[in-house]
Amino acid sequence: MRLSRSLIPTLKETPAEAQIVSHRLMLRAGLIRQQSAGIYAWLPAGQRVLRNIANIVREEQDRAGAQEILMPTIQAADLWRESGRYDAYGPEMLRIRDRHDREMLYGPTNEEMLTAIMRDSVQSYRDLPQMLYHIQWKFRDEVRPRFGVLRGREFLMKDGYSFDLDYAGAVASYRRMLLAYMRTFRRLGVRAIPMRADTGPIGGDLSHEFHILAPNGESGVFYDNAFETIGLGDDTLSYDNQADLNAFFEQMTSLYAATDEKHDTEAWNNVPAQSRREGRGIEVGQIFYFGTKYSEAMGFSVVGPDGSKIHPEMGSYGIGVSRLTGAIIEASHDDAGIIWPASIAPFRTAILNLRQGDAITDTLCESLHEKLGDAALYDDRPARAGEKFADADLMGHPWQLIVGPRGAANNQVEVKNRRSGERTELSADDALTKVLG
Amino acid sequence: MRLSRSLIPTLKETPAEAQIVSHRLMLRAGLIRQQSAGIYAWLPAGQRVLRNIANIVREEQDRAGAQEILMPTIQAADLWRESGRYDAYGPEMLRIRDRHDREMLYGPTNEEMLTAIMRDSVQSYRDLPQMLYHIQWKFRDEVRPRFGVLRGREFLMKDGYSFDLDYAGAVASYRRMLLAYMRTFRRLGVRAIPMRADTGPIGGDLSHEFHILAPNGESGVFYDNAFETIGLGDDTLSYDNQADLNAFFEQMTSLYAATDEKHDTEAWNNVPAQSRREGRGIEVGQIFYFGTKYSEAMGFSVVGPDGSKIHPEMGSYGIGVSRLTGAIIEASHDDAGIIWPASIAPFRTAILNLRQGDAITDTLCESLHEKLGDAALYDDRPARAGEKFADADLMGHPWQLIVGPRGAANNQVEVKNRRSGERTELSADDALTKVLG
Repeated sequence: MRLSRSLIPTLKETPAEAQIVSHRLMLRAGLIRQQSAGIYAWLPAGQRVLRNIANIVREEQDRAGAQEILMPTIQAADLWRESGRYDAYGPEMLRIRDRHDREMLYGPTNEEMLTAIMRDSVQSYRDLPQMLYHIQWKFRDEVRPRFGVLRGREFLMKDGYSFDLDYAGAVASYRRMLLAYMRTFRRLGVRAIPMRADTGPIGGDLSHEFHILAPNGESGVFYDNAFETIGLGDDTLSYDNQADLNAFFEQMTSLYAATDEKHDTEAWNNVPAQSRREGRGIEVGQIFYFGTKYSEAMGFSVVGPDGSKIHPEMGSYGIGVSRLTGAIIEASHDDAGIIWPASIAPFRTAILNLRQGDAITDTLCESLHEKLGDAALYDDRPARAGEKFADADLMGHPWQLIVGPRGAANNQVEVKNRRSGERTELSADDALTKVLG
Repeated sequence: MRLSRSLIPTLKETPAEAQIVSHRLMLRAGLIRQQSAGIYAWLPAGQRVLRNIANIVREEQDRAGAQEILMPTIQAADLWRESGRYDAYGPEMLRIRDRHDREMLYGPTNEEMLTAIMRDSVQSYRDLPQMLYHIQWKFRDEVRPRFGVLRGREFLMKDGYSFDLDYAGAVASYRRMLLAYMRTFRRLGVRAIPMRADTGPIGGDLSHEFHILAPNGESGVFYDNAFETIGLGDDTLSYDNQADLNAFFEQMTSLYAATDEKHDTEAWNNVPAQSRREGRGIEVGQIFYFGTKYSEAMGFSVVGPDGSKIHPEMGSYGIGVSRLTGAIIEASHDDAGIIWPASIAPFRTAILNLRQGDAITDTLCESLHEKLGDAALYDDRPARAGEKFADADLMGHPWQLIVGPRGAANNQVEVKNRRSGERTELSADDALTKVLG
């Protein structure tokens, strides 16, 4: 993509309304623009990040055996009356009346709707277990939206739901999702720690929040430093092997990790002092077992092998897709700007033409651009070199190919790695090999 | 995917609420379920069709040089007051008040929002032309939603917008999009005809609707039968060659094609009698040049080369993504069910196990399933052969691999082509080659 023909409006100044670094950088790098309080438009570079994150989430859900569906954003109030949540939800629910004065709402989550869909479609124990998810916009009317996409009102979320015949099945689904989540975050290029979370009246240990460590995190977190080094769901584990899933679950849950809300001083004191780490975390996902709460309230049952009526055991599994964009920046940036993990960067490589208009430099840049295609952003603006350096660092491309007239005359370019800062002078071909690596 | 573990609830009975064939078939094939009047959930098979269509639309937009963005569903009323459309729009606009009593709306279209984004981001003639699009859910509060996804309230649409410095540039953008649209529909496996449409006060010939021919179409259409045979945007044309774009535009617009609303009896009489065709069409896209209407009303200008203020010339370009699902079924089905074009089918191939539980048959089916992977739906239900045949025809997979115990013993399967009905007995390997073709 040519920067001169792209809607990537970088800003030199720090926008006054942004209080935290990810919000500032998302505005400055031209990823988003606010449209109303807590409601954002995703410009081309931002849209690419969002799509890359969503695709990784999708691939890992599919791999774990979940089926993708797509439920609408607008729901009927009556559906939520069935579960009792319409009145319970409070002012965060955006309530709407349509032209016929019917009560509707913009869905903040989908337990009710999917339970109703399953109730209409699934009758026999033979049809279970099933796990379904969707990636859809949701709305929570935060009283004071802030921190950019970290606490917006309209947000993109993956929410998934499991339906099992019994508790043992629900536990198996839960463990499967724990592995899927760790794999997802690993591919996103961040380390997320599963922290024991509140289970409410259901009790048990089947509720975890996933936190990315970042100085601006909303929660205080306490964790065993083993989480900084252990493998987090590598590919040797199989979803088809329950022993693998159990061992992984055991490993993840036996180490101490809790937010300040659930912090247990006694258990903490049993962690060796040199292993204790305290910090701050941003919640980017949650998994939760809630039993038959919705299947009972909404009358969803299947016929069991012996003809008896079974209310399926359910769990729900959320990942904040738009929120992750901000959270990953909080965890991965420096003074100059964003440092994107390669897997989600809007552009893997930027080509910086330091002498736009010089025939030899232009020719080499065009040739690099053609070979790298859509994965590269070509800074072909008639701008000073300093501006191009600053914007590339700000935008956070994993690689920069810096092309000046002297190098171009010898078919040489400078390759800069954004994360390490390392710069290497290479032939054009070797440079391509390096950034495509 | 295993049908026994999938949420694909096919129905034997015709649902009473569905008046037209595409709506009936989408419900019966388990693609969608209505959640409220005109609001649908897309179940796994339906979600796959929607995603396949959206991906083709996206790829052809990208290829034409448009940039993808993603604007939110909820917009501020004040934005629409700038253009004067907030009061003009009428009750189809879903108006919302948030918890702070601010007036909001669920966007039915995005001219205002994108003009405002461009106004904030683009200052110089050097930044133009640009073309942007997004694929997002929209809402129009139809007084009487009907015909399933053909006239729903919440719908998925690609809307794109072009910004040019002058009329000639806007014409070039328009012609570029005309080619992109014809290529899109060709890849979707349907023939769509561009019909001259109303330009309102702007006049000229820069407004076209794209109609798929189908007996249940909402509009009467009159067209030259050359449209049934000519190439519709093949790959020999280049977006970089204005002569190509002009010649293609000339070819598309010189042939007669109009809906009843714009039908011109005099021009029609000039079409040779043997070339005249009348029928019905479903509108699935529209492209429209509207000049400086929004850039002037909303005060969006750029500085020209001579320092003068230029209001960019705009056009908008829509494709009804969810609507296409229904429209394509209207154009491509038979008494037994849907006939999916291969490019958008939820599953390219179904594997029908006619003797579930028979070791040899099961083994061959499992092996075919493993080789075809995610592109195949394996009907592994403990059901009668007749039910599997009927469901596969209903769901409309382009290919069926029919596996019975006698054939399996000889490593033979029957391959059925859904569209032609042709059945061939082949070795398992040859069958795979055929369906992967």
